[in-house]
Amino acid sequence: MELTVYLAGQIHDDWRDEFSKKAKEKNLSLVFVGPQTNHERSDQIGEEILGKQPGDLYKDDAASDINNFRTQVLMQKADIVIALFGEKYKQWNTAMDASTAIAMDKPVIIIRPESLVHPLKELSNKANVTVETLDQALNVISYIFE
Amino acid sequence: MELTVYLAGQIHDDWRDEFSKKAKEKNLSLVFVGPQTNHERSDQIGEEILGKQPGDLYKDDAASDINNFRTQVLMQKADIVIALFGEKYKQWNTAMDASTAIAMDKPVIIIRPESLVHPLKELSNKANVTVETLDQALNVISYIFE
Amino acid sequence: MELTVYLAGQIHDDWRDEFSKKAKEKNLSLVFVGPQTNHERSDQIGEEILGKQPGDLYKDDAASDINNFRTQVLMQKADIVIALFGEKYKQWNTAMDASTAIAMDKPVIIIRPESLVHPLKELSNKANVTVETLDQALNVISYIFE
Amino acid sequence: MELTVYLAGQIHDDWRDEFSKKAKEKNLSLVFVGPQTNHERSDQIGEEILGKQPGDLYKDDAASDINNFRTQVLMQKADIVIALFGEKYKQWNTAMDASTAIAMDKPVIIIRPESLVHPLKELSNKANVTVETLDQALNVISYIFE
Amino acid sequence: MELTVYLAGQIHDDWRDEFSKKAKEKNLSLVFVGPQTNHERSDQIGEEILGKQPGDLYKDDAASDINNFRTQVLMQKADIVIALFGEKYKQWNTAMDASTAIAMDKPVIIIRPESLVHPLKELSNKANVTVETLDQALNVISYIFE
Amino acid sequence: MELTVYLAGQIHDDWRDEFSKKAKEKNLSLVFVGPQTNHERSDQIGEEILGKQPGDLYKDDAASDINNFRTQVLMQKADIVIALFGEKYKQWNTAMDASTAIAMDKPVIIIRPESLVHPLKELSNKANVTVETLDQALNVISYIFE
Amino acid sequence: MELTVYLAGQIHDDWRDEFSKKAKEKNLSLVFVGPQTNHERSDQIGEEILGKQPGDLYKDDAASDINNFRTQVLMQKADIVIALFGEKYKQWNTAMDASTAIAMDKPVIIIRPESLVHPLKELSNKANVTVETLDQALNVISYIFE
Amino acid sequence: MELTVYLAGQIHDDWRDEFSKKAKEKNLSLVFVGPQTNHERSDQIGEEILGKQPGDLYKDDAASDINNFRTQVLMQKADIVIALFGEKYKQWNTAMDASTAIAMDKPVIIIRPESLVHPLKELSNKANVTVETLDQALNVISYIFE
Repeated sequence: MELTVYLAGQIHDDWRDEFSKKAKEKNLSLVFVGPQTNHERSDQIGEEILGKQPGDLYKDDAASDINNFRTQVLMQKADIVIALFGEKYKQWNTAMDASTAIAMDKPVIIIRPESLVHPLKELSNKANVTVETLDQALNVISYIFE
Repeated sequence: MELTVYLAGQIHDDWRDEFSKKAKEKNLSLVFVGPQTNHERSDQIGEEILGKQPGDLYKDDAASDINNFRTQVLMQKADIVIALFGEKYKQWNTAMDASTAIAMDKPVIIIRPESLVHPLKELSNKANVTVETLDQALNVISYIFE
Repeated sequence: MELTVYLAGQIHDDWRDEFSKKAKEKNLSLVFVGPQTNHERSDQIGEEILGKQPGDLYKDDAASDINNFRTQVLMQKADIVIALFGEKYKQWNTAMDASTAIAMDKPVIIIRPESLVHPLKELSNKANVTVETLDQALNVISYIFE
Repeated sequence: MELTVYLAGQIHDDWRDEFSKKAKEKNLSLVFVGPQTNHERSDQIGEEILGKQPGDLYKDDAASDINNFRTQVLMQKADIVIALFGEKYKQWNTAMDASTAIAMDKPVIIIRPESLVHPLKELSNKANVTVETLDQALNVISYIFE
Repeated sequence: MELTVYLAGQIHDDWRDEFSKKAKEKNLSLVFVGPQTNHERSDQIGEEILGKQPGDLYKDDAASDINNFRTQVLMQKADIVIALFGEKYKQWNTAMDASTAIAMDKPVIIIRPESLVHPLKELSNKANVTVETLDQALNVISYIFE
Repeated sequence: MELTVYLAGQIHDDWRDEFSKKAKEKNLSLVFVGPQTNHERSDQIGEEILGKQPGDLYKDDAASDINNFRTQVLMQKADIVIALFGEKYKQWNTAMDASTAIAMDKPVIIIRPESLVHPLKELSNKANVTVETLDQALNVISYIFE
Repeated sequence: MELTVYLAGQIHDDWRDEFSKKAKEKNLSLVFVGPQTNHERSDQIGEEILGKQPGDLYKDDAASDINNFRTQVLMQKADIVIALFGEKYKQWNTAMDASTAIAMDKPVIIIRPESLVHPLKELSNKANVTVETLDQALNVISYIFE
Repeated sequence: MELTVYLAGQIHDDWRDEFSKKAKEKNLSLVFVGPQTNHERSDQIGEEILGKQPGDLYKDDAASDINNFRTQVLMQKADIVIALFGEKYKQWNTAMDASTAIAMDKPVIIIRPESLVHPLKELSNKANVTVETLDQALNVISYIFE
């Protein structure tokens, strides 16, 4: 049984590669999908495809059209959604992706540092499991295959 | 035709009262529901009902049980959801409520200051309308009754 | 038993008033809802609420945000959707509203002149009933109350 | 990951072949499905299978039975729907297919010339992305595979 | 608490009036809806509203458009569906209405004579309760109000 | 705003009356519905309506037809479901009702004594809130009206 | 693209084998599923697995448990449902399967002789296509692959 | 056609191995999934992954997070759910899994000893089939492949 895992969350470090590598070491039969992780490209994709926009608001909206399209396609393919919150940034996209996944009845794991326990408490409460590290998240998934 | 409006978002000022007062001045047939706006009470409600918890994580989770219960009951009653983001705080609850409402096919208006255009761009893109002021949000709703 | 009827379709004549008057003459217990029928206002509503936009594309998109919001709120309240196509105009909104209603399992009546039989054939085929006149549509609804 | 793309829209030129060829050049793992593109056959299919009908209305309805059957089977298989509007024809089928796809939560791209910005504004607003050329649409899909 | 009951099934006797009268005698707070019970009118309604059709097949299809419209409106209002099968006639409409109601998660009671146990066995098995008399069906509903 | 509350769970004491009385003292606008609480009648209802059955298995199945019918009608009306587990009995009905309500996206409160923490842990984890006393459950509901 | 086709309807002749053979001759990529076609076995399966039942009603209900289980598993796998009505028998199962498939948004073809036009008119009206012969039904499916 | 079967129910004996072995002997094309069957591990998994918890309630809740996550992932993959109740233990998890599967429209077989007929009567009534032995359950599934 192969499971598809959508990796939502911050795109400012290489946690997806690390997670994927750890999964491979455990020989778990997982396929990973997720957002565009090149932040610059994610911000520019609207103007790149749709052409120069008349201001930041419109540029952002054009980029979001395409980023949301990508997320919708890939999240519908996912059996599991992991959402990682880091200590910086507002990361409302991550909260949006996790909440959407929960509303779609996708099983959801949240990864967040202890410092974010309080602001994420309602979302954690709705997700299936909340952990602090990549290893814990992987152990949760690995448990399915036992 | 009476419409029920869920007012999601920050609970650190009295924007709900202001919004409700403005709606009344326009004679719009609206019923407002929303989260517990007494921040202190919202944080303590878990321990108040379920008893002293063994640490902040557990206290927060207990409070979230009850806050999420309230939100689920009231949002299911809503015909429209308004989500207001202010300039401070992480407000992941607001993003969660707006995203959940969108996934439930509830018509959603986001209110946010210009400074939040970029971090909220994907969520704005999925909502029906994004505005900057209470008056604009009210005009959007008022337009239904024309 | 009171039924709510969404009147989708062209906004260039007063067919909604005529329909509503005919319904009243038959003493049918119907509440009518529908789009903004002031064409000018429907086109301007985006800029009016959200402010001047940087070009027609953006002005149209802003107006659509608010028109779609209105349609979503009111169509969710409807027990029946009537979609009227006239001989002029592209009226893709009407096709969109009728198709959305069908996908939402709302019972749908299409009103269209004989000249539009061919271009509307697939949509007519998916709707419950297709007629040519307001009186026929009213007779279909009136039949429910017999 | 292979994605199935339903190509809705006008059947009066060979845009589907062109699109499919471009996708192949980019080595995108896509399977294309869509309506019957032989216009004559699409119009005759009802009488061909069900026999001579007593007039145009009935001939059209018979054809629509079978065309709608085909669309329903294939659209349910699709991960993505692209709807192309050209400058001629009423193309209510295209609006119907795009609207149905949106209501089914399928990610939707609309392709339309600039001249159709205004009449398609509400539908564009509900779709994920609206572009003007095949290349742009392909770039949006290609972005998923990055 | 008032409950709406859709009375599906044969239209060749006055069982609906009898059932409604019995319910009134028990002071149950029920509203009854159902199909057109004037058989002649039910068969003619298509031609009456849509005009003379070119043969029986088309006349029947036109009538069905309008009868199915009525059923869809009223069944969506129902809290409970009762389907009565008599000893004569094919009554595929009744089987269709009961099956549709079950698929819509409406609670369903079937009334049928003992002679129909075998041919209705799979449908009875999917319905909530199967009885033989009006009084039994009424007792099942009456039990809700205890 | 009036809320309908389904009271699932044991029928061997008068906790429903007690709960309802406490709610009235708090002036909460609640309507209570629930299963047949006369245990004897609940067990006999199948034979009473459908006639003598050929053994206990069949008698139980007949009763379940009618009890499940009642539960389905009333739970679909409910805004909130409370499920109370006592210390005796298997109470699989209670687990069934709570699980069904959760799967229907009804907000759910579980009431159970501390001794049942372990066997009910997975169900508690899926419900919104788990408490030990009627007063706590009422406080959770009362919090909605603040 | 391989499609799974559920063949509902009468089990008193070998139309399924014939249909399957014709499909093979056309090289259509179809997988066929359907009910138990050994009538005797279909009627006995309840007692065979569950043991001797205390009368015909119970024997029929036991068989229906298992036949409905089979139908539910296989129909959920189907992309297309074909329902064939012959001239004899009540065939309420066939009407039930077709109606259930329609309510599940499965594309449905009905095959029935001309003599059944009238009694099947409402069900035909809700199905996608109604034909009279196996060849016509196959042509409808074959059209998908063009 | 390969079917995935979720084996819910007691984890205190090796019935899953036995069932799987019997299925293999019959050459049925089945894939089996189910809960963690090492009871000790199932109870400890919360603390093992999330760390030491401050008491039994919290330890149980942590374990349930992860057990429910596993069940949700695997049950969504299942075409069929079998729920086995033994004579000991409260087994509310089993009732929860069966009820959830029923609410998700998964075909469900219950296996229970005769002694549990009465307490399981409402759940049995909602499941597709209830049997007493593994062999009977396997015969029900085997019947699909005939």
